[in-house]
Amino acid sequence: MRVIGIDPGLRNLGWGVIDVQGARLTHVANGICHSDGAKDDLARRLCSLHSQLSEIFRKFSPDSAAIEHTFVNKDAVATLKLGQARGIALLVPAQFGLEVGEYAPNAVKKTVVGVGHAAKQQVEHMVKLHFPGVQIVGADAADALAIAVCHAHHCQSAGRLQAALLKAAG
Amino acid sequence: MRVIGIDPGLRNLGWGVIDVQGARLTHVANGICHSDGAKDDLARRLCSLHSQLSEIFRKFSPDSAAIEHTFVNKDAVATLKLGQARGIALLVPAQFGLEVGEYAPNAVKKTVVGVGHAAKQQVEHMVKLHFPGVQIVGADAADALAIAVCHAHHCQSAGRLQAALLKAAG
Repeated sequence: MRVIGIDPGLRNLGWGVIDVQGARLTHVANGICHSDGAKDDLARRLCSLHSQLSEIFRKFSPDSAAIEHTFVNKDAVATLKLGQARGIALLVPAQFGLEVGEYAPNAVKKTVVGVGHAAKQQVEHMVKLHFPGVQIVGADAADALAIAVCHAHHCQSAGRLQAALLKAAG
Repeated sequence: MRVIGIDPGLRNLGWGVIDVQGARLTHVANGICHSDGAKDDLARRLCSLHSQLSEIFRKFSPDSAAIEHTFVNKDAVATLKLGQARGIALLVPAQFGLEVGEYAPNAVKKTVVGVGHAAKQQVEHMVKLHFPGVQIVGADAADALAIAVCHAHHCQSAGRLQAALLKAAG
Protein backbone atom coordinates (compact mmCIF):
# COMPACT_ATOMS: atom_id res chain seq x y z
CA MET A 1 0.00 0.00 0.00
CA ARG A 2 1.26 3.47 -0.88
CA VAL A 3 0.34 6.28 1.52
CA ILE A 4 0.59 10.04 1.05
CA GLY A 5 0.61 12.36 4.07
CA ILE A 6 -0.25 16.03 3.60
CA ASP A 7 0.55 18.95 5.90
CA PRO A 8 -1.64 21.77 4.52
CA GLY A 9 -0.58 25.41 4.36
CA LEU A 10 -1.10 28.26 1.90
CA ARG A 11 2.57 29.23 1.53
CA ASN A 12 4.07 25.79 2.16
CA LEU A 13 2.07 22.60 1.67
CA GLY A 14 4.18 19.62 2.74
CA TRP A 15 3.72 16.11 1.32
CA GLY A 16 5.38 12.77 1.90
CA VAL A 17 4.85 9.41 0.19
CA ILE A 18 5.74 6.05 1.77
CA ASP A 19 5.25 2.41 0.83
CA VAL A 20 3.84 0.03 3.44
CA GLN A 21 4.53 -3.72 3.27
CA GLY A 22 3.47 -5.36 6.50
CA ALA A 23 5.42 -3.62 9.27
CA ARG A 24 8.04 -2.33 6.81
CA LEU A 25 7.76 1.34 5.80
CA THR A 26 9.84 2.64 2.89
CA HIS A 27 10.28 6.27 1.91
CA VAL A 28 9.26 7.05 -1.68
CA ALA A 29 9.40 10.85 -1.96
CA ASN A 30 8.74 14.06 -0.06
CA GLY A 31 8.46 17.70 -0.95
CA ILE A 32 6.76 21.04 -0.42
CA CYS A 33 4.30 22.77 -2.77
CA HIS A 34 4.77 26.52 -2.63
CA SER A 35 2.48 29.43 -3.51
CA ASP A 36 3.71 32.99 -3.66
CA GLY A 37 1.60 35.68 -1.97
CA ALA A 38 3.75 38.49 -3.36
CA LYS A 39 3.20 37.39 -6.97
CA ASP A 40 -0.29 35.90 -7.08
CA ASP A 41 -3.71 36.63 -5.64
CA LEU A 42 -5.41 34.10 -3.38
CA ALA A 43 -7.43 32.35 -6.12
CA ARG A 44 -4.32 31.83 -8.28
CA ARG A 45 -2.35 30.55 -5.26
CA LEU A 46 -5.04 27.94 -4.51
CA CYS A 47 -5.16 27.00 -8.20
CA SER A 48 -1.38 26.57 -8.24
CA LEU A 49 -1.42 24.39 -5.08
CA HIS A 50 -4.22 22.30 -6.61
CA SER A 51 -2.28 21.67 -9.82
CA GLN A 52 1.01 20.94 -7.99
CA LEU A 53 -0.66 18.48 -5.62
CA SER A 54 -2.66 16.82 -8.44
CA GLU A 55 0.62 16.31 -10.33
CA ILE A 56 2.10 14.54 -7.26
CA PHE A 57 -0.96 12.25 -7.09
CA ARG A 58 -0.59 11.46 -10.81
CA LYS A 59 3.16 10.80 -10.43
CA PHE A 60 3.08 8.60 -7.31
CA SER A 61 -0.45 7.08 -7.47
CA PRO A 62 -1.02 6.72 -3.71
CA ASP A 63 -3.65 4.22 -2.53
CA SER A 64 -4.51 6.14 0.60
CA ALA A 65 -4.16 9.70 1.92
CA ALA A 66 -3.97 11.32 5.35
CA ILE A 67 -4.00 14.86 6.66
CA GLU A 68 -3.56 16.42 10.07
CA HIS A 69 -6.74 17.39 11.87
CA THR A 70 -6.33 21.14 12.08
CA PHE A 71 -5.85 22.63 15.49
CA VAL A 72 -7.83 25.89 15.20
CA ASN A 73 -6.30 28.78 17.07
CA LYS A 74 -7.49 32.20 18.14
CA ASP A 75 -6.12 33.99 15.09
CA ALA A 76 -9.23 33.95 12.87
CA VAL A 77 -7.44 35.34 9.79
CA ALA A 78 -4.78 32.60 9.98
CA THR A 79 -7.50 29.97 10.53
CA LEU A 80 -9.38 31.14 7.41
CA LYS A 81 -6.16 31.05 5.32
CA LEU A 82 -5.32 27.58 6.57
CA GLY A 83 -8.91 26.49 5.91
CA GLN A 84 -8.67 27.57 2.28
CA ALA A 85 -5.42 25.63 1.76
CA ARG A 86 -6.86 22.67 3.67
CA GLY A 87 -9.88 22.66 1.32
CA ILE A 88 -7.47 22.02 -1.58
CA ALA A 89 -5.53 19.37 0.39
CA LEU A 90 -8.81 17.48 1.02
CA LEU A 91 -10.21 18.02 -2.49
CA VAL A 92 -7.33 16.47 -4.45
CA PRO A 93 -7.39 12.99 -2.79
CA ALA A 94 -11.21 12.92 -3.11
CA GLN A 95 -10.89 13.76 -6.83
CA PHE A 96 -8.57 10.76 -7.18
CA GLY A 97 -11.19 8.60 -5.44
CA LEU A 98 -9.27 8.15 -2.17
CA GLU A 99 -10.56 8.25 1.38
CA VAL A 100 -8.75 10.82 3.52
CA GLY A 101 -7.70 9.82 7.04
CA GLU A 102 -7.62 12.70 9.53
CA TYR A 103 -5.41 12.57 12.62
CA ALA A 104 -5.05 14.96 15.54
CA PRO A 105 -1.55 16.47 15.84
CA ASN A 106 -1.10 14.68 19.17
CA ALA A 107 -1.93 11.31 17.61
CA VAL A 108 0.69 11.91 14.91
CA LYS A 109 3.32 12.90 17.49
CA LYS A 110 2.45 9.95 19.71
CA THR A 111 2.94 7.52 16.81
CA VAL A 112 6.23 9.00 15.62
CA VAL A 113 7.86 10.27 18.82
CA GLY A 114 6.04 8.22 21.47
CA VAL A 115 4.55 11.17 23.32
CA GLY A 116 1.71 13.50 22.30
CA HIS A 117 3.35 16.73 23.34
CA ALA A 118 6.62 16.51 21.43
CA ALA A 119 8.24 19.62 19.94
CA LYS A 120 8.16 20.15 16.17
CA GLN A 121 11.95 19.60 15.87
CA GLN A 122 11.60 16.27 17.64
CA VAL A 123 9.11 15.08 15.00
CA GLU A 124 11.56 16.01 12.23
CA HIS A 125 14.36 14.26 14.09
CA MET A 126 12.38 11.03 14.55
CA VAL A 127 11.22 11.05 10.92
CA LYS A 128 14.87 11.32 9.85
CA LEU A 129 15.76 8.38 12.13
CA HIS A 130 12.83 6.42 10.69
CA PHE A 131 14.05 6.91 7.13
CA PRO A 132 17.86 6.96 7.39
CA GLY A 133 19.74 8.55 4.52
CA VAL A 134 16.60 10.19 3.11
CA GLN A 135 16.84 13.87 2.18
CA ILE A 136 13.87 15.65 3.78
CA VAL A 137 13.27 19.02 2.14
CA GLY A 138 11.92 20.86 5.20
CA ALA A 139 9.83 20.78 8.39
CA ASP A 140 6.52 20.72 6.45
CA ALA A 141 7.66 17.68 4.45
CA ALA A 142 8.82 15.98 7.70
CA ASP A 143 5.37 16.62 9.21
CA ALA A 144 3.72 15.18 6.11
CA LEU A 145 5.86 12.02 6.37
CA ALA A 146 4.94 11.76 10.07
CA ILE A 147 1.24 11.92 9.11
CA ALA A 148 1.80 9.16 6.50
CA VAL A 149 3.56 7.01 9.13
CA CYS A 150 0.69 7.58 11.58
CA HIS A 151 -1.85 6.58 8.91
CA ALA A 152 0.14 3.42 8.05
CA HIS A 153 0.23 2.37 11.74
CA HIS A 154 -3.48 3.11 12.11
CA CYS A 155 -4.37 1.04 9.01
CA GLN A 156 -2.17 -1.85 10.24
CA SER A 157 -3.86 -1.85 13.67
CA ALA A 158 -7.26 -1.75 11.98
CA GLY A 159 -6.13 -4.59 9.69
CA ARG A 160 -4.88 -6.69 12.61
CA LEU A 161 -8.11 -6.07 14.47
CA GLN A 162 -10.15 -7.14 11.44
CA ALA A 163 -7.96 -10.26 10.99
CA ALA A 164 -8.40 -11.17 14.67
CA LEU A 165 -12.16 -10.66 14.44
CA LEU A 166 -12.34 -12.77 11.28
CA LYS A 167 -10.27 -15.48 13.02
CA ALA A 168 -12.51 -15.34 16.10
CA ALA A 169 -15.62 -15.50 13.89
CA GLY A 170 -14.15 -18.36 11.80
CA MET B 1 -20.06 40.75 -19.86
CA ARG B 2 -21.36 37.81 -17.83
CA VAL B 3 -20.70 37.87 -14.09
CA ILE B 4 -21.02 35.09 -11.52
CA GLY B 5 -21.32 35.93 -7.83
CA ILE B 6 -20.53 33.24 -5.25
CA ASP B 7 -21.57 33.10 -1.60
CA PRO B 8 -19.39 30.31 -0.17
CA GLY B 9 -20.52 27.83 2.45
CA LEU B 10 -19.94 24.14 3.10
CA ARG B 11 -23.58 23.11 3.38
CA ASN B 12 -25.03 25.74 1.02
CA LEU B 13 -22.91 27.46 -1.59
CA GLY B 14 -25.00 30.14 -3.33
CA TRP B 15 -24.34 31.28 -6.90
CA GLY B 16 -25.94 33.86 -9.20
CA VAL B 17 -25.20 34.70 -12.84
CA ILE B 18 -26.09 38.04 -14.46
CA ASP B 19 -25.43 39.66 -17.83
CA VAL B 20 -24.14 43.23 -17.88
CA GLN B 21 -24.70 45.47 -20.92
CA GLY B 22 -23.81 49.05 -20.05
CA ALA B 23 -26.00 49.97 -17.08
CA ARG B 24 -28.46 47.17 -17.83
CA LEU B 25 -28.23 44.07 -15.63
CA THR B 26 -30.13 40.94 -16.64
CA HIS B 27 -30.62 37.86 -14.51
CA VAL B 28 -29.40 34.63 -16.12
CA ALA B 29 -29.63 31.99 -13.40
CA ASN B 30 -29.19 31.39 -9.69
CA GLY B 31 -28.95 28.39 -7.44
CA ILE B 32 -27.40 26.70 -4.44
CA CYS B 33 -24.86 23.87 -4.46
CA HIS B 34 -25.42 21.57 -1.52
CA SER B 35 -23.20 19.12 0.29
CA ASP B 36 -24.49 16.67 2.86
CA GLY B 37 -22.57 16.31 6.13
CA ALA B 38 -24.71 13.39 7.26
CA LYS B 39 -23.91 11.33 4.15
CA ASP B 40 -20.36 12.32 3.16
CA ASP B 41 -17.06 13.05 4.87
CA LEU B 42 -15.45 16.47 4.48
CA ALA B 43 -13.21 15.57 1.52
CA ARG B 44 -16.17 14.14 -0.46
CA ARG B 45 -18.28 17.21 0.36
CA LEU B 46 -15.59 19.54 -0.99
CA CYS B 47 -15.19 17.32 -4.06
CA SER B 48 -18.95 17.44 -4.65
CA LEU B 49 -19.05 21.27 -4.31
CA HIS B 50 -16.10 21.51 -6.72
CA SER B 51 -17.80 19.39 -9.36
CA GLN B 52 -21.19 21.16 -8.98
CA LEU B 53 -19.60 24.61 -9.24
CA SER B 54 -17.37 23.58 -12.17
CA GLU B 55 -20.50 22.35 -13.98
CA ILE B 56 -22.12 25.78 -13.48
CA PHE B 57 -19.02 27.49 -14.92
CA ARG B 58 -19.11 25.14 -17.95
CA LYS B 59 -22.84 25.73 -18.45
CA PHE B 60 -22.91 29.53 -18.13
CA SER B 61 -19.34 30.49 -19.17
CA PRO B 62 -19.01 33.62 -17.00
CA ASP B 63 -16.39 36.22 -18.00
CA SER B 64 -15.81 37.42 -14.47
CA ALA B 65 -16.34 36.14 -10.92
CA ALA B 66 -16.81 37.73 -7.51
CA ILE B 67 -16.96 36.46 -3.94
CA GLU B 68 -17.68 38.06 -0.62
CA HIS B 69 -14.64 38.92 1.49
CA THR B 70 -15.19 36.68 4.47
CA PHE B 71 -15.93 38.30 7.76
CA VAL B 72 -14.03 36.08 10.19
CA ASN B 73 -15.76 35.58 13.50
CA LYS B 74 -14.78 34.25 16.88
CA ASP B 75 -15.99 30.74 16.21
CA ALA B 76 -12.73 29.17 14.97
CA VAL B 77 -14.35 25.85 13.97
CA ALA B 78 -16.93 27.67 11.81
CA THR B 79 -14.19 29.86 10.31
CA LEU B 80 -12.15 26.78 9.36
CA LYS B 81 -15.21 25.15 7.74
CA LEU B 82 -16.02 28.29 5.83
CA GLY B 83 -12.37 28.59 4.80
CA GLN B 84 -12.42 25.11 3.31
CA ALA B 85 -15.56 25.86 1.25
CA ARG B 86 -14.15 29.25 0.30
CA GLY B 87 -10.99 27.56 -1.00
CA ILE B 88 -13.18 25.67 -3.50
CA ALA B 89 -15.16 28.83 -4.41
CA LEU B 90 -11.87 30.61 -5.24
CA LEU B 91 -10.27 27.63 -6.96
CA VAL B 92 -12.96 27.01 -9.59
CA PRO B 93 -12.90 30.52 -11.20
CA ALA B 94 -9.08 30.45 -11.22
CA GLN B 95 -9.16 27.05 -12.95
CA PHE B 96 -11.38 28.63 -15.64
CA GLY B 97 -8.82 31.44 -16.03
CA LEU B 98 -10.95 34.15 -14.38
CA GLU B 99 -9.87 36.85 -11.96
CA VAL B 100 -11.91 36.80 -8.77
CA GLY B 101 -13.16 40.09 -7.34
CA GLU B 102 -13.49 40.16 -3.55
CA TYR B 103 -15.89 42.55 -1.81
CA ALA B 104 -16.50 43.25 1.85
CA PRO B 105 -20.06 42.38 3.00
CA ASN B 106 -20.69 46.07 3.71
CA ALA B 107 -19.66 47.05 0.17
CA VAL B 108 -22.12 44.51 -1.25
CA LYS B 109 -24.94 45.77 0.99
CA LYS B 110 -24.13 49.39 0.19
CA THR B 111 -24.37 48.71 -3.55
CA VAL B 112 -27.59 46.73 -3.39
CA VAL B 113 -29.48 48.31 -0.48
CA GLY B 114 -27.77 51.72 -0.24
CA VAL B 115 -26.50 51.29 3.30
CA GLY B 116 -23.64 49.13 4.62
CA HIS B 117 -25.45 47.79 7.66
CA ALA B 118 -28.58 46.36 6.06
CA ALA B 119 -30.18 43.18 7.37
CA LYS B 120 -29.87 39.94 5.39
CA GLN B 121 -33.59 39.93 4.52
CA GLN B 122 -33.28 43.45 3.13
CA VAL B 123 -30.60 42.27 0.69
CA GLU B 124 -32.87 39.47 -0.52
CA HIS B 125 -35.76 41.93 -0.86
CA MET B 126 -33.73 44.43 -2.92
CA VAL B 127 -32.32 41.67 -5.15
CA LYS B 128 -35.90 40.54 -5.87
CA LEU B 129 -36.85 44.16 -6.73
CA HIS B 130 -33.78 44.40 -8.95
CA PHE B 131 -34.75 41.32 -10.94
CA PRO B 132 -38.58 41.36 -10.97
CA GLY B 133 -40.29 38.08 -11.70
CA VAL B 134 -37.16 36.05 -11.15
CA GLN B 135 -37.40 32.96 -8.96
CA ILE B 136 -34.63 33.15 -6.36
CA VAL B 137 -34.02 29.77 -4.77
CA GLY B 138 -32.93 30.98 -1.34
CA ALA B 139 -31.07 33.52 0.78
CA ASP B 140 -27.64 32.20 -0.27
CA ALA B 141 -28.53 32.57 -3.95
CA ALA B 142 -29.86 36.11 -3.27
CA ASP B 143 -26.54 36.98 -1.58
CA ALA B 144 -24.65 35.58 -4.55
CA LEU B 145 -26.71 37.73 -6.96
CA ALA B 146 -26.04 40.77 -4.74
CA ILE B 147 -22.28 40.05 -4.98
CA ALA B 148 -22.57 39.81 -8.79
CA VAL B 149 -24.45 43.16 -8.89
CA CYS B 150 -21.78 44.76 -6.69
CA HIS B 151 -19.04 43.43 -8.99
CA ALA B 152 -20.87 44.73 -12.10
CA HIS B 153 -21.17 48.22 -10.56
CA HIS B 154 -17.53 48.17 -9.51
CA CYS B 155 -16.37 47.14 -13.02
CA GLN B 156 -18.56 49.84 -14.59
CA SER B 157 -17.11 52.53 -12.30
CA ALA B 158 -13.60 51.31 -13.08
CA GLY B 159 -14.48 51.35 -16.80
CA ARG B 160 -15.90 54.90 -16.63
CA LEU B 161 -12.80 56.05 -14.76
CA GLN B 162 -10.54 54.49 -17.38
CA ALA B 163 -12.59 56.08 -20.21
CA ALA B 164 -12.40 59.50 -18.52
CA LEU B 165 -8.63 59.13 -18.04
CA LEU B 166 -8.18 58.09 -21.68
CA LYS B 167 -10.28 61.08 -22.81
CA ALA B 168 -8.27 63.45 -20.58
CA ALA B 169 -5.01 61.95 -21.90
CA GLY B 170 -6.19 62.13 -25.56
